[in-house]
Amino acid sequence: MRMAELSAESGVPVATVKYYLREGLLPPGERTSPNQARYSAAHVQRLRLIKALTDVGGLPLASVGAVLAAIDGDETPHRTMGLVQQELAGPAPEVSAEAAQWASGLLEDLMRRNGWKRYPAENRTVANLVAALATAKELGQEKLTDRLEEYLELALRVAELDIEVVDGLTSVDRIIEAGVIATVLGDRIFAGLRHLAQEKVSRQALGGRPPG
Amino acid sequence: MRMAELSAESGVPVATVKYYLREGLLPPGERTSPNQARYSAAHVQRLRLIKALTDVGGLPLASVGAVLAAIDGDETPHRTMGLVQQELAGPAPEVSAEAAQWASGLLEDLMRRNGWKRYPAENRTVANLVAALATAKELGQEKLTDRLEEYLELALRVAELDIEVVDGLTSVDRIIEAGVIATVLGDRIFAGLRHLAQEKVSRQALGGRPPG
Repeated sequence: MRMAELSAESGVPVATVKYYLREGLLPPGERTSPNQARYSAAHVQRLRLIKALTDVGGLPLASVGAVLAAIDGDETPHRTMGLVQQELAGPAPEVSAEAAQWASGLLEDLMRRNGWKRYPAENRTVANLVAALATAKELGQEKLTDRLEEYLELALRVAELDIEVVDGLTSVDRIIEAGVIATVLGDRIFAGLRHLAQEKVSRQALGGRPPG
Repeated sequence: MRMAELSAESGVPVATVKYYLREGLLPPGERTSPNQARYSAAHVQRLRLIKALTDVGGLPLASVGAVLAAIDGDETPHRTMGLVQQELAGPAPEVSAEAAQWASGLLEDLMRRNGWKRYPAENRTVANLVAALATAKELGQEKLTDRLEEYLELALRVAELDIEVVDGLTSVDRIIEAGVIATVLGDRIFAGLRHLAQEKVSRQALGGRPPG
């Protein structure tokens, strides 16, 4: 297909497609004349993936490039997912040293009690988790972290379901791309379901409570 | 305390504090001379909250203003949380009409089967959920949505825990602010725990699998 059709099929404007080509996020089409190239279904899929990573995942383009390189690389699915997670997490927000130390201790105790391996603090998932817990502490809301053990148990059940879903797909190629998509969309979908559920539960528990 | 101390206590630079004062996100201090004002612990707490909403929650300043207005308003905790959820969700990304229709049907069936109330499509939580499901469909990964029922069940358990945690706090004032903080931090904390759990589970399930 030509550029115009590629744009229509993927829902990505022509100028943006050209930008992705220049940035190397999209591989070049097959040149048919000095000014024209032919694109394939693989190009459409790649554009849709870039759109999902930016629009749904909220990733900056530099991270999109790193994720695509990981998908195209020759790491195992497990390691590819790990790289993608680090890009998704992004740099952690700044918190005070005191709160960060409290939060690191909380997380380390939780991991040890549950027999999980220790993750290095520079792991971005850990750094963001520590920053979020530290923020609760800075806001004087450390009671919000009292039931972390139960959240970990539920997070483990969600993760088991995640891996079952991805692992149930047949080809390895699909597994890597599906794993990436599942990670990006999975957080949004679960957060959405949780918010609807919060609305439902809080209507019953707090709905009748008077304004503060 | 004076401006310099307010900045040091909250970790927010003086220029940013002044900007928040001009934008009305932070109430003015008590004027002590034409060029000076005195700030209280409530100002420190408000600045920390703004920092959490922007840095951890990723909210744009306009949404921060809406969230703070909701906290300061006289709605019930249930309705305040609803307003905050809408701001957190933000506008939904664009998807094709065909995929959106498929995703809406999927979500409506899920809600009906489980006896949940129907939410209007303009609810931003619903709109974002539909967009995420539709994106899976556009990427040819609709199998990723096969186990939505089980995710809903787990999301309900997480939400029950959320409401229990917030409801366990004593004063109503704390409940509203804690509810907001729990919603903002809760998504990040759960996503972080889920990613660590995915890493753990996938190491066992997929770790030995060869590169694609």
